[in-house]
Amino acid sequence: MIKASIVGGTGYTGVELLRLLAVHPDVEIAAITSRGDSGRAVADMFPSLRGQLDLRFSEPDVSILGESDVVFFATPHGVAQAMVPDVLARGARVIDLSADFRIKDVGLWERWYGQPHACPDLVNDAVYGLPEINRATIVSAKLVACPGCYPTSVLLGFLPLLATGGIDVDDLIASAASGVSGAGRGASVDNLHSEVSDSFKAYGVAGHRHLPEIEQGLAEVAGTAVSLTFVPHLLPIIRGIHATLYATLVEERVDIQTLYEQYYANEPFVDVLPAGMFPQTRSVRGANICRISVVRPQQRQKVVVMSVIDNLVKGASGQAVQNMNVLFGLPETRGLTAPPLLP
Amino acid sequence: MIKASIVGGTGYTGVELLRLLAVHPDVEIAAITSRGDSGRAVADMFPSLRGQLDLRFSEPDVSILGESDVVFFATPHGVAQAMVPDVLARGARVIDLSADFRIKDVGLWERWYGQPHACPDLVNDAVYGLPEINRATIVSAKLVACPGCYPTSVLLGFLPLLATGGIDVDDLIASAASGVSGAGRGASVDNLHSEVSDSFKAYGVAGHRHLPEIEQGLAEVAGTAVSLTFVPHLLPIIRGIHATLYATLVEERVDIQTLYEQYYANEPFVDVLPAGMFPQTRSVRGANICRISVVRPQQRQKVVVMSVIDNLVKGASGQAVQNMNVLFGLPETRGLTAPPLLP
Amino acid sequence: MIKASIVGGTGYTGVELLRLLAVHPDVEIAAITSRGDSGRAVADMFPSLRGQLDLRFSEPDVSILGESDVVFFATPHGVAQAMVPDVLARGARVIDLSADFRIKDVGLWERWYGQPHACPDLVNDAVYGLPEINRATIVSAKLVACPGCYPTSVLLGFLPLLATGGIDVDDLIASAASGVSGAGRGASVDNLHSEVSDSFKAYGVAGHRHLPEIEQGLAEVAGTAVSLTFVPHLLPIIRGIHATLYATLVEERVDIQTLYEQYYANEPFVDVLPAGMFPQTRSVRGANICRISVVRPQQRQKVVVMSVIDNLVKGASGQAVQNMNVLFGLPETRGLTAPPLLP
Amino acid sequence: MIKASIVGGTGYTGVELLRLLAVHPDVEIAAITSRGDSGRAVADMFPSLRGQLDLRFSEPDVSILGESDVVFFATPHGVAQAMVPDVLARGARVIDLSADFRIKDVGLWERWYGQPHACPDLVNDAVYGLPEINRATIVSAKLVACPGCYPTSVLLGFLPLLATGGIDVDDLIASAASGVSGAGRGASVDNLHSEVSDSFKAYGVAGHRHLPEIEQGLAEVAGTAVSLTFVPHLLPIIRGIHATLYATLVEERVDIQTLYEQYYANEPFVDVLPAGMFPQTRSVRGANICRISVVRPQQRQKVVVMSVIDNLVKGASGQAVQNMNVLFGLPETRGLTAPPLLP
Repeated sequence: MIKASIVGGTGYTGVELLRLLAVHPDVEIAAITSRGDSGRAVADMFPSLRGQLDLRFSEPDVSILGESDVVFFATPHGVAQAMVPDVLARGARVIDLSADFRIKDVGLWERWYGQPHACPDLVNDAVYGLPEINRATIVSAKLVACPGCYPTSVLLGFLPLLATGGIDVDDLIASAASGVSGAGRGASVDNLHSEVSDSFKAYGVAGHRHLPEIEQGLAEVAGTAVSLTFVPHLLPIIRGIHATLYATLVEERVDIQTLYEQYYANEPFVDVLPAGMFPQTRSVRGANICRISVVRPQQRQKVVVMSVIDNLVKGASGQAVQNMNVLFGLPETRGLTAPPLLP
Repeated sequence: MIKASIVGGTGYTGVELLRLLAVHPDVEIAAITSRGDSGRAVADMFPSLRGQLDLRFSEPDVSILGESDVVFFATPHGVAQAMVPDVLARGARVIDLSADFRIKDVGLWERWYGQPHACPDLVNDAVYGLPEINRATIVSAKLVACPGCYPTSVLLGFLPLLATGGIDVDDLIASAASGVSGAGRGASVDNLHSEVSDSFKAYGVAGHRHLPEIEQGLAEVAGTAVSLTFVPHLLPIIRGIHATLYATLVEERVDIQTLYEQYYANEPFVDVLPAGMFPQTRSVRGANICRISVVRPQQRQKVVVMSVIDNLVKGASGQAVQNMNVLFGLPETRGLTAPPLLP
Repeated sequence: MIKASIVGGTGYTGVELLRLLAVHPDVEIAAITSRGDSGRAVADMFPSLRGQLDLRFSEPDVSILGESDVVFFATPHGVAQAMVPDVLARGARVIDLSADFRIKDVGLWERWYGQPHACPDLVNDAVYGLPEINRATIVSAKLVACPGCYPTSVLLGFLPLLATGGIDVDDLIASAASGVSGAGRGASVDNLHSEVSDSFKAYGVAGHRHLPEIEQGLAEVAGTAVSLTFVPHLLPIIRGIHATLYATLVEERVDIQTLYEQYYANEPFVDVLPAGMFPQTRSVRGANICRISVVRPQQRQKVVVMSVIDNLVKGASGQAVQNMNVLFGLPETRGLTAPPLLP
Repeated sequence: MIKASIVGGTGYTGVELLRLLAVHPDVEIAAITSRGDSGRAVADMFPSLRGQLDLRFSEPDVSILGESDVVFFATPHGVAQAMVPDVLARGARVIDLSADFRIKDVGLWERWYGQPHACPDLVNDAVYGLPEINRATIVSAKLVACPGCYPTSVLLGFLPLLATGGIDVDDLIASAASGVSGAGRGASVDNLHSEVSDSFKAYGVAGHRHLPEIEQGLAEVAGTAVSLTFVPHLLPIIRGIHATLYATLVEERVDIQTLYEQYYANEPFVDVLPAGMFPQTRSVRGANICRISVVRPQQRQKVVVMSVIDNLVKGASGQAVQNMNVLFGLPETRGLTAPPLLP
């Protein structure tokens, strides 16, 4: 049994980790921390977990966390940085769901996140935890930086096109929309039901923190710098990201449908839909799956890719568990095979 | 492995059975029927099941169904009646999710459902599939009549009070509300998103078909006739029933909280919340659980019971699987332990 | 033109007052206050009002407020108490949307609201602003205490039955449900979209502050003490209250439908639906209307009344404007005739 | 008073016309037709209109319709074509909300709508009813073809950029999303609450019927052919369209914010938001307004325009009333000034 701990258990990615790990056959949850709710029963805050877990939130204590085999950080950015070096030093491996170790260019990170990085030396050791790209290096990683939710959907959507070339890498667009759980569980007027439901809006258009992360990932696959216009929108749904991607073909392609199907033929968590079928966010609700469609409207030069994930699963906690499976030599799908909840 | 077939697979209880049975360790799905969609891949209609099932809808054929160990009917009322005798005769057991065999008084059934019953002789052999009451008789049943969704939530909510007496059985009220999936997957103006969302209403106030079913169940436990006022409401949510029950105490009770906790102490799928905590439908989303609270406001004579289920799980397909587990001697919780999806 | 000011303009009842008063033909908005947002343009916070109002939030200043003809308080309880005496002394009339002056028994108020009342002497001068009961006394009031949202829906629903007798006043039940805007615009985890949407729950079952207010109103009409069981629920909708009321007949009644139709025949804002038609909250969305149905299921002893309002309009700001119309001798419907928004 | 009739009154654009016309000070509603519901009271089907209208649906009868000053067609495409010539011949003017007369190239229309056009001769006489472009010609029109909902939002969003040049007209993208009311009030599985809510998807990606209409409008303003990639999405909201538009700058521009503000400075129904503020669909809920933001992320070559309307108001019935105001020489804003409903 893998002994797993979670730092920051009162947010949505924390409770989602609990939901997944509670029924993972190879995991035992050792501790879940929360400064504010230390001592409180987890199932008291999240009644969906009554009968599933007999666990209380505890104070984050590196000496205890360090005894785990793996420590998940489900914390706001800035928190993992401060604790990860100590946790690693005690021999645990770390899977960080926050943004702390995703961006390789520390200066770039500091500019977008508006604070100095607490352990820049570790950034290079961190492996970007998108198994569909980095599976081979994740295996031996000590520190995995789980991708953001938007980056996961956008990267998986663009990968086949970028890897095989033939599109204009300076003219990429990601018009993406996320459910409200992506904004976290903090008290805020902007995310009240009465503010969000029955409405739709773009936000962060001038610059969202996921932009440099996505461009970094795209550039790595393309082997060259890329330019992405990224516009996130807020959906009045709980879970789900839908990324609508636009790219311009610069050379004729025989068959983008076949390209996508072949590229992802062996991926357990990427599902390329048949031509003419478009993905819905509900088709992945609660599951660690990315479903993708690709189409070339009117046979013109634009390719449109649609990519959906559950932001809390393949966009966060499910991907973290997938990374854990890779890290510990388990089948990558272990504990992640339950069907999505539809309707 | 239990060989299971499903008649009527294109509705919400059908696809929910598929979701549950696809990952049930002891079940192999033999067939799923649909007259209108015969030949179509199940995962084409329900993309959430892509990668989970390689199955096509087929014409309902009694000779093939009869080769299964168990046949689930997820059909509108009237359908199972016509096929069940043949299916039973071929040796399969039947779990009927429709209303066909729930009401023991055939005349009462015919009055409320507005049609003659096609096999009244079988009604008496059918066991009402609420395991929390009838577990002992379900074991040896050939035909299980799964309770309706409202009846499940109302019966489980009232049971402890009725079983121990002390309330006025002529003054019971169930003010209940259901998510829209309870209305089925048929095309209808009334259930369009634009008609239902951001709104709330009562319906069927003059008389809902679940009323005689609930009164039958209550009377059996009370050992006497009861009178229930039942007002269902339509909630702008997908899944979930919340029943708010009102009863009048006619004798002082020491502790209704303790009564409920003890009554359900050994039930795996009934969760009595601690005093002061009230159930939310989302706390059972996707799971085969009924959560119950009981309170006596202002210490007056009224007891208020709140009971929530997922109408598609404990109110339909999950309960059907629970019954199947009982029928085949499996642990009652087999295949039904995944945590609810929250948020 | 009536010169009107609003104290507490950043909540939902504040912005709703602005929406209604901005197009009221006899009103000029003099000031809208907010301590936290003083100086900010109203249309900057509420973009729906762009082009409708050229107004900025200002500090609450009694000397300025006192120059208005009428001052609306759209503040949390406790605020109006502290300012109303001064405002009245300067000659303005006050319409208070908060709970400060609703309950005549000051001790009862202090027990439920957990604080001493700041001006108990004024409580008796305040008129409870339900025009359907108190129209005659509102005309000459200096201080109107607008009813709460639940009380409005419950009182209007029970009035005809209580006024004519024949029901058991010790056995009244109100199972009511409110949209989330009723919980206000404050930052709170409990009212986040991800916590509330796609779910339903009861709350405040042990005792909600509207209970004593409702019982006071019911008792006044009944001419005797009454006992109400009141269970509020939280609906995943923005606006709307649906109250489902239960009463027990103690004498036979010829025709409750006729009773209701006649009782409200001359009320411009109460609409009794024809027999067999049940109200939906969306049918009053944005409008100052209460729609009511009454039914006696199975011709038994229970009468069920359904009553819907928009909690922000007839349950708050619309009713406040209705009271203003009465106060200033305008036709009661002035500025309140726009149809509801459906769908 | 303008005598107005409506053909096809049971859909969402029909009931929305009723909502607007019922309180329009210069309009008297003469007739509203419905083949299926002839004889039924309008307020029986749409309870929101109880007390607002005393009108019954009638059979469509050209001789009666012809006596109106104006006839609105709120019908599916194909219906107006068959009746408009007769109605015009009798002297009434026609405002068609359907797609029948929007596209000038009859062959193009027939290809996209899959049927022959019933009166191609009239197409050229029809004026495309986007007053922000065609105000001058609408004044004297006999037949106004109201723009589609997506076209309204996309055209208003792109207009200033196209009119002044400097962008690549072969590289336009409209990633747009509509509330479900845009799909109409017909019974359909796809638009059930349980299918749509808590989910998001693209649809019609290979080719939506609004594409040729939008390209026609864009080309007219640009003075040259344009190429648009148009991807519509389905939002789980009732009302609202949000169009996110992408264009590539081919020459440097001093200030796109100023361009937009000046272009729309005198338009009563187009609101350009200040820099840094993005539009939400709820900010126009129920109102005849288009709110627009424009931004150039990271100061790169892409311009992003966001444009929101209420699809049933500025995208349909409100725009129809605006056209009527122009046709009859009324102030363009008459009857269209009520503020949006927020929250």
